[in-house]
Amino acid sequence: MKLLEDRIHTDGQVLGQDILKVDRFLTHQVDYQLMKKIGKRFAQVYANAGVTKVVTIEASGIAPALYAAESLNVPMVFAKKAKNVTMNDDLLITEVYSFTKKLTSTVQISSKLIEEGDKVLIIDDFLANGQAALGLVHLMEQAKAEVVGLGMVIEKSFQDGRQKLLDQGMKLTSLARIEKFEDGKVIFAPADDKDFD
Amino acid sequence: MKLLEDRIHTDGQVLGQDILKVDRFLTHQVDYQLMKKIGKRFAQVYANAGVTKVVTIEASGIAPALYAAESLNVPMVFAKKAKNVTMNDDLLITEVYSFTKKLTSTVQISSKLIEEGDKVLIIDDFLANGQAALGLVHLMEQAKAEVVGLGMVIEKSFQDGRQKLLDQGMKLTSLARIEKFEDGKVIFAPADDKDFD
Repeated sequence: MKLLEDRIHTDGQVLGQDILKVDRFLTHQVDYQLMKKIGKRFAQVYANAGVTKVVTIEASGIAPALYAAESLNVPMVFAKKAKNVTMNDDLLITEVYSFTKKLTSTVQISSKLIEEGDKVLIIDDFLANGQAALGLVHLMEQAKAEVVGLGMVIEKSFQDGRQKLLDQGMKLTSLARIEKFEDGKVIFAPADDKDFD
Repeated sequence: MKLLEDRIHTDGQVLGQDILKVDRFLTHQVDYQLMKKIGKRFAQVYANAGVTKVVTIEASGIAPALYAAESLNVPMVFAKKAKNVTMNDDLLITEVYSFTKKLTSTVQISSKLIEEGDKVLIIDDFLANGQAALGLVHLMEQAKAEVVGLGMVIEKSFQDGRQKLLDQGMKLTSLARIEKFEDGKVIFAPADDKDFD
């Protein structure tokens, strides 16, 4: 998505070897106009997939997932990283390991919110090692729901999350694919939605 | 907001003495249509307040805050409950005590995202004891930004958050105000936006 790549060039900040900071429009401050266009793009790509629910994980995935849900006219569900006092239903539960935080956390969705036969589009802000995405896929398997695809706003293509998802037969749509960082600049690989630009 | 009260009657679930579960449309599964109307309502109430930013706290506040930001055509910023590897700027930091979780957590916003002179509308999903809301107000004070008001989707009017905010001279707009729970049913007090219905 050319618009997103341009915005990453303008407002993204490369930190060290492998971190991209996009807190001006995605992960902390949220530019609703860009998010809306991102949500619409995901909806365009999956327009004929019969999506019944958009699923993401708190917190930075919520904005793009919400606009994707709006464009597809379906509900959005966000997986929770912590159990709270109102989560008294049966839960779909999985463990997600974070390489950056070096810890395993539990991710859960109420089993009442995803039904057998649901056709789910999974959305997230970043795809790196793929742990969160694979965790969400695993939750959908538990619910006997079908994952029709995964939409990632930004993919770090030099990490192995992409390959892991493709190895599982998943359809993957990353709107900005980072091939590498060079002298503090972002070099992009062709995005999965390039034909829609 | 009549539409919201009706939805709470239909899909809300009273748990024990003082907990309302609204995971079908707000805190876990998100009904974008309702959230959009809620966002528009906040924007109506604060249409002439010169809002420059909408601020919320992750995660359930994000959806209503995003649509409020869209309706007001300003950016949305969500405060973070955990510091991550990209938060290398100066931070606005406060402590928020959770009565339900019985623990104090740190809430932070990058100081670059809120500027002196910003006119901020604070949005959150629930107002109960007011700790999260007061924490956000405190962050805005640190940034020398002006809080033009607080918009709460659901207020538990039998807890003291409302009074604490009013005591600080804040303008408060709660779209559904729960006076009490009676035999598992929700009894509402007049909402702050009733004149807009």
